[in-house]
Amino acid sequence: MQIAILAHEEFPGRAKTALGVLRYSDDEVVAVLDRDNAGQRVSDFVPDVQDAPIREGMADLAAEDVDALLIGIAPIGGGFEASWREDVRTALDYGCDVVSGLHYFLEEDEEFAALAAENDCEIRDVRKPPEDLTVSQGIADQVDAEIILTVGTDCSVGKMTVSMELARDAREAGHDAAVIPTGQTGIMIEGWGNPIDRVVSDFTAGAVEEMILEKGDEHDYLFVEGQGSIVHPAYSAVTCGILHGAMADKLVLCHDAGREVIHGYESFALPDLSTYVDLYENLAAPVADSEIVAGALNTSNLDDDAAAREAVDEYASDLGMPASDVIRFGSEDLLEVLL
Amino acid sequence: MQIAILAHEEFPGRAKTALGVLRYSDDEVVAVLDRDNAGQRVSDFVPDVQDAPIREGMADLAAEDVDALLIGIAPIGGGFEASWREDVRTALDYGCDVVSGLHYFLEEDEEFAALAAENDCEIRDVRKPPEDLTVSQGIADQVDAEIILTVGTDCSVGKMTVSMELARDAREAGHDAAVIPTGQTGIMIEGWGNPIDRVVSDFTAGAVEEMILEKGDEHDYLFVEGQGSIVHPAYSAVTCGILHGAMADKLVLCHDAGREVIHGYESFALPDLSTYVDLYENLAAPVADSEIVAGALNTSNLDDDAAAREAVDEYASDLGMPASDVIRFGSEDLLEVLL
Repeated sequence: MQIAILAHEEFPGRAKTALGVLRYSDDEVVAVLDRDNAGQRVSDFVPDVQDAPIREGMADLAAEDVDALLIGIAPIGGGFEASWREDVRTALDYGCDVVSGLHYFLEEDEEFAALAAENDCEIRDVRKPPEDLTVSQGIADQVDAEIILTVGTDCSVGKMTVSMELARDAREAGHDAAVIPTGQTGIMIEGWGNPIDRVVSDFTAGAVEEMILEKGDEHDYLFVEGQGSIVHPAYSAVTCGILHGAMADKLVLCHDAGREVIHGYESFALPDLSTYVDLYENLAAPVADSEIVAGALNTSNLDDDAAAREAVDEYASDLGMPASDVIRFGSEDLLEVLL
Repeated sequence: MQIAILAHEEFPGRAKTALGVLRYSDDEVVAVLDRDNAGQRVSDFVPDVQDAPIREGMADLAAEDVDALLIGIAPIGGGFEASWREDVRTALDYGCDVVSGLHYFLEEDEEFAALAAENDCEIRDVRKPPEDLTVSQGIADQVDAEIILTVGTDCSVGKMTVSMELARDAREAGHDAAVIPTGQTGIMIEGWGNPIDRVVSDFTAGAVEEMILEKGDEHDYLFVEGQGSIVHPAYSAVTCGILHGAMADKLVLCHDAGREVIHGYESFALPDLSTYVDLYENLAAPVADSEIVAGALNTSNLDDDAAAREAVDEYASDLGMPASDVIRFGSEDLLEVLL
């Protein structure tokens, strides 16, 4: 599939979804739309992802070159910016599908809904959970696949990235591995998945289990994208539901180098690493034997490779298990204990 | 307010909501509707709750005697039984409000919606969460009130009942205490509240916090009704969100005498009590200093008072803290460590 990614005025620094899709999607990105950087290329900003030209808007692209437009940014609050309307309109006029992870559902926008119907294209609001979800049965561990879940010390520490990297590297090493996407970016990359943070709270574990049951007998390894943190004042419910719903065999503890307080909740200090290990394992134990066997450290805020190496070594030593920054130093050591 | 409670063919054994309202509501119950037991009285079946006549249907009551009809039973699946339609219709014709905790939303039923509009009455689906909920800010501990949360070893062990009993007994002892209702029965009894198991998963903690912030400066003690169990394969997300959202000062661990496996998930054994104590306290710790200080044992499945006494004593001894069956033996010992 050939896709365009809308990321006006936010690329690349604040365009997490756009970057995730550029890095991991199998789709061909024909353009990133960013009116601030039109004329440049993705590779001018980010070296290690799929390259693509940056354009002013959908009107600069030929209809036959694009199958779908992805909204690759998410303003605080998840609203739809009026200045993006022209691009979505043009995409639908071209007969392109539109994929969005905004809280504002594009399929409920009257103009877009009418245009989509007229041009026979699909609007997919990936943040809208399917309506047939229900409670967990507690049977995710019955699938053939080994289940590996990323858990974190906080939000935004790299759980999605780690899951994607591990699955890709496992595949490259000849294993049959798939990702179970639980958030909007993961869902956009994989083209399917349940947005766990938007489901009815009673169905949190069930929404994860449903995906594992669907894919678990088709693969040897499932890498479940974790969310939040078990000690997060606001989001721990989602984390707990994923932990029990996934019934994982192995856990990878993800952390952001230097992070000392909960992001956005600065009065809450992160407990030490051994507390996280005990909490995740002890909380999982009555439901599944899930063991933390490796660590993933996000060192993107350290410029110096030597400092990053040192941080990773210290993290591994503190945990007493293999660790890496999977983007910077690869995932070999982790896969050795995971597969 | 004068209310009628619909409990056809399920009273009293399978009418948990009806019994909760009869036991704890300040409203006057003018009748229970149960076509199987019409002509008898509540006190013929249950001695220690508000008494009321049992009637065949709404048509047996005078319009001026009833302000609201409550649906006091919940069939598996939460559907609406066709045989209840006549009673709801009559209630709305009388100008009565209708309050329901079913998954099937009565306000979306075309006939009922039209009748309600015509007769200027309100249909309240208490299982429908308010639309303005959002994420927790992590500030529930800033209210003036001391916050006491019931937590459990499983679902259906008596958390709602314990919260209601403790609040009532605290008030009778001269304290200013209120209940924070989180489930349908609690919401019906109290006349307000957020159905935590139906909110968007990301808002689980926030939906509890919002209620505590609303009431926390008006009372000296808030008894927060807990849900589920932290080790439940399906419902732990809700439990975890309540634990972190409530930021409770004190926890009461509720258990059902003799329960050894998760209700409905019999392949999962309950861990031992010390595991629960550690899990609840350690999981709460990074967000709030919540300590389990007392136990509540549900001995309703033990006929013999002596056996119940023995079970409670053993539970207290295992926990190393005061314990009681608050229905059978009162709450004095618990309130001593809670207030």
